[in-house]
Amino acid sequence: MSERRFDPTTGEWVTFATHRQERTFLPPADSCPLCPDPAGAWDGEIRRPEFDIAVFDNRFPSLRPDPEAPAVAGSELMPVAPARGRCEVVVYSSDHATSLSRVGAGRVRLLLDVWADRYAVLGAEGHAYVLPFENKGEVIGVTLHHPHGQIYAFDEIPPRPLRELSAAARHRAATGRCVECDVVAAEVAGGDRVVAAGERWVAHVPFWARFPYEVRLSPREHLPSFAAVDAAGRDDLAGVLVDVLAGLDALFGFEMPYIMGIFSEPTGGDPAAAGWDGAWSDISHLHLLISPPYRTATKLKYLAGVESMGGAFMTDVAPETAAANLRAAIAREAAAGHASGVGTL
Amino acid sequence: MSERRFDPTTGEWVTFATHRQERTFLPPADSCPLCPDPAGAWDGEIRRPEFDIAVFDNRFPSLRPDPEAPAVAGSELMPVAPARGRCEVVVYSSDHATSLSRVGAGRVRLLLDVWADRYAVLGAEGHAYVLPFENKGEVIGVTLHHPHGQIYAFDEIPPRPLRELSAAARHRAATGRCVECDVVAAEVAGGDRVVAAGERWVAHVPFWARFPYEVRLSPREHLPSFAAVDAAGRDDLAGVLVDVLAGLDALFGFEMPYIMGIFSEPTGGDPAAAGWDGAWSDISHLHLLISPPYRTATKLKYLAGVESMGGAFMTDVAPETAAANLRAAIAREAAAGHASGVGTL
Repeated sequence: MSERRFDPTTGEWVTFATHRQERTFLPPADSCPLCPDPAGAWDGEIRRPEFDIAVFDNRFPSLRPDPEAPAVAGSELMPVAPARGRCEVVVYSSDHATSLSRVGAGRVRLLLDVWADRYAVLGAEGHAYVLPFENKGEVIGVTLHHPHGQIYAFDEIPPRPLRELSAAARHRAATGRCVECDVVAAEVAGGDRVVAAGERWVAHVPFWARFPYEVRLSPREHLPSFAAVDAAGRDDLAGVLVDVLAGLDALFGFEMPYIMGIFSEPTGGDPAAAGWDGAWSDISHLHLLISPPYRTATKLKYLAGVESMGGAFMTDVAPETAAANLRAAIAREAAAGHASGVGTL
Repeated sequence: MSERRFDPTTGEWVTFATHRQERTFLPPADSCPLCPDPAGAWDGEIRRPEFDIAVFDNRFPSLRPDPEAPAVAGSELMPVAPARGRCEVVVYSSDHATSLSRVGAGRVRLLLDVWADRYAVLGAEGHAYVLPFENKGEVIGVTLHHPHGQIYAFDEIPPRPLRELSAAARHRAATGRCVECDVVAAEVAGGDRVVAAGERWVAHVPFWARFPYEVRLSPREHLPSFAAVDAAGRDDLAGVLVDVLAGLDALFGFEMPYIMGIFSEPTGGDPAAAGWDGAWSDISHLHLLISPPYRTATKLKYLAGVESMGGAFMTDVAPETAAANLRAAIAREAAAGHASGVGTL
C-alpha cells in the first residue's frame, strides 16, 4: 500500500506507505547500508571503496516516481491519489562515525552543490517541491547513524512551506516587500539574535523561535533557491553553517541532535495556492532552519498537547539568551580552531 | 519573561514563558503536587482528603489573565504582546496510580461536565479559544504522572484549530454543508474505520490518520461545543470514550501514551479570520482527537524532517487495519468486562 489521502478537515494530504514498517532499524555498524560496501558483502547501497558524498534512491521510499495505484477507493469528500514523488538519501561521508558538524567546510561546500544539483534535477522531473532535510540523533528518531540527509520531492507543495509562502504573499501584498528580506534586515540591524554572519549569509535565532536553540540561515539578498546562489555565496554559507553546527555541538558538550530543513522556491504548482498572482520567486527567499530538540543539557522540548493539538508553541528560553549562548559556544570553538570564525556582523 | 511574539513568516504567534524552565519535573510519588495534601505537608495543590475531579490554575502558567508587560520591544514586522490567557489543570482522580482509561464511565461522564463548565466559564471571561487537552505518558513528555489533563484559554484562535475552521469554511462555501458532518456520515455508511459507535457519537480512525492509531470522536449531529451536548449525548460519549481508551490500552498490552485534544467552537475572534462570513457555529463541529505515538508495540512514530519541516505526514499503517485492530481490542475488553461494549454501528 502506497498512496496519498486527503484530509478535508485541514485541506492537507497524508501519505501512506505500509511497506516502510519493515525498513532498516539501527543496524550494527559492521552492516551499515550507508558504509562503503565495494564487494556487496552486506548488500550495502554504495559499491565503492570510498566516496565524498553519495546520493541514491531510498530503498524504502514513501514517494515513488511510478507508484502503484491506490489500494482504497477515494471519494469526492476524501480523495486518494498515487504517492508520486521521490525520496533520496544523501550520504555525507564514507566515515560511519563522523557528522555534518565535523566533515569540514570543504565537504559542507560540496553538499551545497549537491543540494543545488538535486534541486535542479528533481525540479526538472516535474515535481512541485524539493525538500532537503536531515534528521540527526536517536531522540529525533533516526534509524541509521551513518551521517546522512534526505531529499523528498513532492508532487504538491507540502503544508509547512505552503503556509510560509502564503504568509510571504500576504506580506508582499501589504508592503511590496519580501518578508524574509525584512526579517534579515531587521536582525542585522539589531544584532542581538545573530549567531554567525558572513558577507552574504546570516544565521540567527528567530525572534519567534519555536525551539529554544533554533537557528535560521538566510542569504542577505533575495535569492529564491540554490540555483541563484553563486560560488561565492556558497563559500560564504559553508563557513556560516560550519560555525552554527560547531556551536550547537559545543553548547551542551555533546553532539546536538536536530532536524534541518531547506526551504526553496517551489519547482511547480500554482502561486495562486498561496494567494499570490505573481511568480513563486517573488515570495520565495531561500532559507535553512535547524531545530534542535533540547531546551537544557538534559531536558527535551516535547511537542505535546499545546503544540500538537493547538499548533501553538510554548518556549521557555528567550531567543536573545539562546543567541548569546550560541555565539559564546561558536567563539570557543573558533578559538580552538574547530570553527571558521566567520564572525557576527 | 512572559510574552507572545509574532512570526511574520507563518503568521503565527509563539509564546515565551521563561519561568517555566523551573517547573516541577517528575516528582517522587510521595510529594506529588496533584495528590490530596489536606494538611499542606508538601505544598500540594489540593488541600482535601479526597476528590473526584479538581480544577485549578497551573502554578507554572504559559498564559495568565494579568500578564506582565513584554520584556522586549516589538516592531511592526515582529510585534510582541502580553501572554494573556489561562492555563488550568484538571485532575481526574485523587488516586495517583489510575488513569483516564481506568477511572470508570461515571468519572469520565463527570469530566465531560467539567469540560463543558470550563468552556462556558473561560469563554465568558473573554478568551477567544478554549482548548482542553491531555498529555499522557513519559514518551509524550509528561512531567507529572498523576492522571490529569489541562485546559488552555487563548486570546487568539491557535493555529491548528484555525486551519480546521478555515478548511470547514471552504467546504461549507463549496457545498453548503459541514465537513465534519459529511465525514461522520461517510464513515458511518462505510463502517470499516469505525471503532466504537453510540447512538449519538462515533469514534473512528480517520481516512487520513496522521498517527497510525489516531482516533477521532464526533457527535453524529452538528453540535459546535459541549454547551450543545445534552445529558443523553454526554452519557453516550462517556461510553464511547471509555471503550476507545480501553481498546488503546489493550492494543499492545501496555497503557497507551497519547495526546488528546478537544476542538470546539471558538468563544471569541472573528470568523473572517477563517474566511467565513457567517457564525462560528456554522463551521464548528465538536470533536475529540486522540493521537498515540506508537506505530507498533515497540516503535514510536517520530515527527522528523518530513513532518516537522514539511508538515507532510508519512504513515506506515493502513487506517482500515488500525481500526480493525482497535475493534478487536475493544471486543476483548468488553468480553472481559473492562469496556462498555457500546458497539460499532
